[in-house]
Parts: sequence; structure tokens; C-alpha cells
Amino acid sequence: MSLIRVTIWNEFVHERENPAVSRIYPLGIHETLAAALRSFPGVDVCTTTLGDTDQGLSHDLLVNTDVLIYWGHAAHDEVRDETVARVHARVLEGMGLVVLHSGHWSKLFKRLMGTTCALRYREAGERERVWNISPGHPIADGIGDYIELPESEMYGEPFGIPTPDEQVFISWFEGGEVFRSGCCWRRGNGRIFYFRPGHEIYPTYFDPNVRRVIANAVEWARPQGLWRDEGAKRPEALETIGAKRPGG
Amino acid sequence: MSLIRVTIWNEFVHERENPAVSRIYPLGIHETLAAALRSFPGVDVCTTTLGDTDQGLSHDLLVNTDVLIYWGHAAHDEVRDETVARVHARVLEGMGLVVLHSGHWSKLFKRLMGTTCALRYREAGERERVWNISPGHPIADGIGDYIELPESEMYGEPFGIPTPDEQVFISWFEGGEVFRSGCCWRRGNGRIFYFRPGHEIYPTYFDPNVRRVIANAVEWARPQGLWRDEGAKRPEALETIGAKRPGG
Amino acid sequence: MSLIRVTIWNEFVHERENPAVSRIYPLGIHETLAAALRSFPGVDVCTTTLGDTDQGLSHDLLVNTDVLIYWGHAAHDEVRDETVARVHARVLEGMGLVVLHSGHWSKLFKRLMGTTCALRYREAGERERVWNISPGHPIADGIGDYIELPESEMYGEPFGIPTPDEQVFISWFEGGEVFRSGCCWRRGNGRIFYFRPGHEIYPTYFDPNVRRVIANAVEWARPQGLWRDEGAKRPEALETIGAKRPGG
Amino acid sequence: MSLIRVTIWNEFVHERENPAVSRIYPLGIHETLAAALRSFPGVDVCTTTLGDTDQGLSHDLLVNTDVLIYWGHAAHDEVRDETVARVHARVLEGMGLVVLHSGHWSKLFKRLMGTTCALRYREAGERERVWNISPGHPIADGIGDYIELPESEMYGEPFGIPTPDEQVFISWFEGGEVFRSGCCWRRGNGRIFYFRPGHEIYPTYFDPNVRRVIANAVEWARPQGLWRDEGAKRPEALETIGAKRPGG
Repeated sequence: MSLIRVTIWNEFVHERENPAVSRIYPLGIHETLAAALRSFPGVDVCTTTLGDTDQGLSHDLLVNTDVLIYWGHAAHDEVRDETVARVHARVLEGMGLVVLHSGHWSKLFKRLMGTTCALRYREAGERERVWNISPGHPIADGIGDYIELPESEMYGEPFGIPTPDEQVFISWFEGGEVFRSGCCWRRGNGRIFYFRPGHEIYPTYFDPNVRRVIANAVEWARPQGLWRDEGAKRPEALETIGAKRPGG
Repeated sequence: MSLIRVTIWNEFVHERENPAVSRIYPLGIHETLAAALRSFPGVDVCTTTLGDTDQGLSHDLLVNTDVLIYWGHAAHDEVRDETVARVHARVLEGMGLVVLHSGHWSKLFKRLMGTTCALRYREAGERERVWNISPGHPIADGIGDYIELPESEMYGEPFGIPTPDEQVFISWFEGGEVFRSGCCWRRGNGRIFYFRPGHEIYPTYFDPNVRRVIANAVEWARPQGLWRDEGAKRPEALETIGAKRPGG
Repeated sequence: MSLIRVTIWNEFVHERENPAVSRIYPLGIHETLAAALRSFPGVDVCTTTLGDTDQGLSHDLLVNTDVLIYWGHAAHDEVRDETVARVHARVLEGMGLVVLHSGHWSKLFKRLMGTTCALRYREAGERERVWNISPGHPIADGIGDYIELPESEMYGEPFGIPTPDEQVFISWFEGGEVFRSGCCWRRGNGRIFYFRPGHEIYPTYFDPNVRRVIANAVEWARPQGLWRDEGAKRPEALETIGAKRPGG
Repeated sequence: MSLIRVTIWNEFVHERENPAVSRIYPLGIHETLAAALRSFPGVDVCTTTLGDTDQGLSHDLLVNTDVLIYWGHAAHDEVRDETVARVHARVLEGMGLVVLHSGHWSKLFKRLMGTTCALRYREAGERERVWNISPGHPIADGIGDYIELPESEMYGEPFGIPTPDEQVFISWFEGGEVFRSGCCWRRGNGRIFYFRPGHEIYPTYFDPNVRRVIANAVEWARPQGLWRDEGAKRPEALETIGAKRPGG
């Protein structure tokens, strides 16, 4: 198969403003993820950020992207509606989308889900165990019973999402909560995977299992067909209308 | 049980502008539907239109509505984003929503679905047979094998929606197409039913089976609980964080 | 509405053989559950056990049951295939089914699911927190953020089930696991709810929230329609076959 | 990727007993399908029938099969329960399954679905139009708006199945019915596709689009992971049980 063209988009705010974050991700979460993905075969990775032209999500870039990885948090409101509309349309057209961690609260994810996407959270450096509840799923390939993260931000239920088409991971937190951490949806021609781990103040994206899941998700979300929705159409009838009926 | 408070919203454009429509629905589709629903027990019905205060969908009205029935077509673009946001939030909070016919293309429905909601269509006065594919479903209660409509606008697949949680009806068209005509989704605390029949130039809403389905859908979509999503929250830990582990 | 006719079926083995169990449930889990349900309005409750005529699940009883509650563990293999077939057919016909705890491993549940229904387990008297992840769902009505059970048998993922149509509860366990504890499916005309809590050596069925969930599930699972599947049929054509086509 | 090992199983009854069938499929439907599949790259195809050792579905063969294609009709009752159990277990373990046409009524399919799998049917040589309702789905790859079959057996709704995870095709019939003709489910680690076309008295399996769909389905259903369900397990606790709680 041809290379999967992956674009990693990061708002790139925390890493420039918070020394605690820049110590972990000096070049930005996007570059850490890019380096990680490049260690897997079959991908062609580029990175882009909110500060780039067209907020880093130009039409040309999107058309040439097979799978978009999305990390945002502090600047969700700065992403313009027209930027969201471009990405949204491209997902429905077939581009895969991997939304990470606080991206659950992005305009883009909320628009694709149609729901609040709200959740509970706590920053307490607690242990997280991401259970693999669908061990035969391609996104869980190579992952054992669970991924253990020694320090995590807690995300807790209820998570305001439509019922996932496939549930791959559910997290256990030391402080007492659970969370649907790995969720798949199909929307239009596109595949969407939400993956919870990744708070900016922990080195989560250096965890080899977290990296493996993201690489698997890229493979899973790659476009499966060539369809573009062309909007409403007015076809001619295929059968004679007004035909006589039996007994009529 | 208490009465179900039903609000029927209609953009009310075709009936005022097109004599062919006003002959069938002289007081508007909303009043025809209201009269129909009032013949069923257990409902308290009011009507409202785009021309009313707050586009007929004020906060006060929505808070006092259990199930909203929505008919729109020519004026989708005139519905303001803030109006859509109010109704959308109320659906997620628990208000039931029954979207009829060309309402598939409304801002509201597209926002709830997160997809294109596109389809194909043809106005040729052809026969439609709405098959009951889920005969034990409460929305199909009292409906036989199918509803036959002698003259209908054709809606054809592909219909750009997320996979319905429950599929109740699929239509056969004389001209050769099929369509998922009765679809259920849960979003947040609300239940949504899309029902295809109802083009303005045919007397579809006088059909007793069509009326029965809409009345059943109102009953099905009534709020099931009292939850309001309160957005992100930051709870205290329920368990001691930092506890020693076995063998640790 | 008319009373919901509830039948509580229990294999009734542990309570007669194990003093530790009979101290908690001296008349059997079925009688404890029956007493609990009778405190809710709108139900007509009877109990039956494996030792009764037709293994407690006669054709006559099933036909007069709206919702069956099922508890089994030690005697799954003693339930005859013809008994399973009777109950299975009645569920598809529209009888509601609430499967409790170790009933996940019953022939009946496995037949309805079509999968292994396997899971992991541990008897260590650990704390369980049953999270309400769908707070607007009728089965969660009256339940707060979670149900806390001070001592529980652990059930852990992966749970070998088809993706639930609706996920209502997910459990957190003190020992480190998670589990999909409250799951809804529709099969044929029947509604099925699996609810995890209830090990025989703990007084779980005296917990008021556990009782409330079971009562809610009975209400949710009551038959919604009157359909009976009549098997394959050979209808006459509704349209003329061999009609000329446009341009043909 | 490695070759997909495809086994085509046919009861092989009609072709030996009915001259009208053997004229179309002189070597059996399985050999026609095998020849068709061999024209696609990436597959290693073998055929087997009910009359072979272990009813053509031995343990050794199944272990070495990635995707099983299943055609049966007249001899469903002759397939032994132990044969069904072997195939069923192998699907849950990860083998893909493509069930064709009257295979909907096989013990195997009913066991995987847990429902009646009943439908309506009519042999009247009528036109069928198999609509592609999910044009971006990999199983619809290369298929246009619909597949037209000039003469088909009619299958009509209601079809007694669990809601499909993904709906790919819905058929229109000249005689007035509709049918969910292409349905996907995941069960355990296996993927299942049901495809309606294929009555033995019509040359349906010579249609290039029907062949393309079956080849696509084989690719879609190939095993995605390496998991084997190992049944119930009793793990040690991962966290200390009995730890003190905050404020406790």
C-alpha cells in the first residue's frame, strides 16, 4: 500500500508559555508525536500549528492528508469557524481523524459528535490504567491487557458523546473514576478515533504503548474509499412511474 | 403519567406563498399536525412558527416543551445560529425531537448529527411504501406491514447520517429507490426521531398511519430522566492517591 | 398502565448448600429480590426456581410474564436446552429480560448474545463503584453519580459481548479493574438488560440503589409492542412484475 | 500483506439434484465463486462441501482459514451441532465470515446473531436493485450507486437480525419490497458480513459487481488481530485492597 500521509496539528500554546511543559516537549507535542510516528513503517508525517497560515489547516494541506492527528486545549476558541468547517467537511469526505486528550473539547470534535463532549477532570498526578477491552481490535494490536500510566490527569464519566461504534479502551483511575478512553466512530466517509491519554504536564507521549496505539489508530483511520458526498441530487426515475398494479 | 407538552414548529413559508400548498394546508402544516395530535390522548399541543418572537423557539417555550416537532424547508438559512444553539442545547438536556421530511436539511438536524444529512430527491408524484422493519418497536405500534402513500416526493440513498441507533422504517419508491425513512438516535439526554413522509404538495399529513407514527414518536421521545449536563467539573478524589501497591 | 408481570427465576443452589449464603438470603435471592420489587409500584411479582416444574420456566408462565429476572451460577449446565429455547423464543417475542451477575455465563444469555460472554473475576471483598455514565437513561433514574458497594466480587474486562446498544454503567474496582456493568440490547421484540452486581456471599441485593436499578430495568424492559415473529412467509407481489421501464 | 486464506463452503445439494441449477453451476456454486475470487489478487482459495470429512469444516481447515464463505439452504438441519460449534468458536477467535443468501437461515448464522433471522421471500424472477447506501465503505469499493440484478428471488423485511453495526446495502424489489441486503457485525474477534444476492436458480454469482462485493468483503473480514479468548480467568489484584480512603 501507499504511504499514509499524516498531518499532526497542535495548537502549540502550553509548550511556549509554560516551562513545566516545554521541559517535557521542548519542540512541542506535535514534534514529539511526529518523531514517534516516524519510527513506524508506512507513514509520511508532517506537523502544523495554529500559528501557521490558515491556522495550519489550509485546504491544500487537508486535501493531501489521509489522517489528521489533533491536539488542542487552551486555544479552542481561537480556531475560526471556517477552519472548523474545512476540517469537518474533509473528515466527512474520508480523511481519518485522531483526536487526542483535551481535543475532546474542540469545536471540531463537538461538531462531529453533535453533543456536549463534556467530562470531569482532576490534575492530581494519579495512576491511570487504560484497559484494553477489545483485544482483537486493530487499534489494540500489540497492546497487552492494559497500559499503565504512572501519572495522569483524570478524566471521568459521564462523557457527553454519542455511543461509540466501537469501544476499544476504558480507563481506571487511582482516585476512583472510570472513563471511555478509546472510542471509534464512523461519520460520512471518515473514521474518527478519540484517545484520552496525553496531558501536557506529563511525558505521556513518550510511553511506547501510547505511541503504538496512535500509530495503530492512524492505520485504522486511513481512508477506506474514494467517495465524496456531492450534496443533494435529482435523479431521473429508474422505473416507470404510474405502472398498473396487480389487481389494480 | 402527566401530559406530554408538545410544541409543533413550522417555518410556515410554502403555505403562505404557494396556492397549491395552501389548498391542502390552509392554516399551515403545523395546525394540521396539531389537530391530528390532539385526537390522541395524553398530549398538550401548541404550535409556533418562524415568524413568532425569538423565531418561535424562545427559551421559555423550550423549557416548557417535552417534545418538539420540526418542519422546515425553504427557510433553513433564516433560522439564526443562536436559535439553533438554544434548541440543540435543550435536546441534549432531554427534550425529545421529531424531525419531519425536509427538516433533514435544517441547521438543527445537521448540528445534532454532525454529518451532511444529504440525500437525493425527485418530485414525480410516485407511490411510496414505508416498510415497518421493526414491528415490535413502540414507534411502529398499530402500524401494519407498511404504510402506502399514493403520491410522494422521492428521497433516495445515500442519506448522509450516522448509523441510526434503531431503524424503524425503510421506504420503497415506485421510481426505483430506497430510503431509511424512520430513524432513532439518542444524543445526550434527548431522543431524536427522523420521519421522512410529508412533502408540502401532497396531503400526507392527513394519512391516519402517518399521524399514528408521529403520535407514537412523541410518546417514545418524551423525556426519560431529569439530568442536565453541567459541563466540565473538577471533583475531589474518592480514593487515596499515592497508596502503596501490592509488591510495590 | 397495567401492572408489569415480573417473574424472578433463581437456580436456588448456593442458598441451600452454603451457610454463608443462606445467612444473607435465607429464603433465596429470588425472595429477597421479590420483596424488594414489591416495594415499587406497578409490578406483580412471582418467583420460581430450577427445582420447579419445567425447571421453573414453563410455557404457561412465560406467556404470562412481561419481564423475567434471571439469577444463575452453579447450575448453568443443568438448565436443559429445551428450557433455554422456550425462554429465548419468548424474549424474541417481546418479553423483557434482566440478567443479573453470574447469569452472564448462562446458556440463555450466551444464546442471545452469540458470543463467549467470558470475563475475569476475583473474590476478594473489594470496593466497587458502579459509575452512572448515562445519567438521563431511565434505568439510571434516581441514581446519583455512582453506586458504591463496599464489598464485591470483581468482574473484569474484556467482557465477551456484542457492543451494547446502550451503556448505562461502568464499574471501578479497588483492585484495579473496570467492567461494563450495565448494558442494554434489543433482540427481536425483546429488551435485555445485564446488571453486574450481586454476588451471593455479599448482601448486595439489600442495597437500595441496586434495588432501584433493577426496578428501573423492569420498567424499561416491559414489552413495547405486540409483535410475534411468525417465521418465513411468502407474500404475493404488491407491484406488477415485468413492467416496462423508462427507455426500455 | 500475506495472502488471505479463503475457504468457500457449500452444502452442494441443489446443484446435484436440480438440473435447472446444475445447468448454471455445473461444478457447484462453490467452484463458481472460487473461480471468481481467484481473479482478484491476494487470496488463496479452497473449496469444501457438506459431504467432505467433518462435514467439510474440520478443525484443521478452520484453523488455517482466514475468511469462510458460507452457502447453504436445503441441508441446514444436516449440519451437526458440533460442526456449528467449531465454526462459531473460530469466528469469535477471529476468522472472518461471509454468509451468502439463504445462509441467513443456517444454524451458524442464527447462533451468531442470537435472533430468528427470519424474513419473507418470493420466487418470481423479479428485478432487484441493490443500493449502495454507504459509498465510502470498503465493501462497496468500486461499486456504483447500485447493483441491478434482472432476475432475483425476493427477500423482504422484517429481517430478524440485531441492528447491524454497519449497513452497506439495501435492496429494492420490483414486486414492492425492501431488504437490508448487506450487513456488517463484529462478534468477538471476528467480522461477519451478510450479503443477500445469490439464489441458485439465477446466475447471480456471475455478475461482476456481486463478485466484486464478495471479494471486498473477504478483504474487509480478514482477521485484524491475534487474540484468542481464553475464557474466565482469576487475576491477582493490581492495587492494594483495603487501602484507607480520603476522610475515611
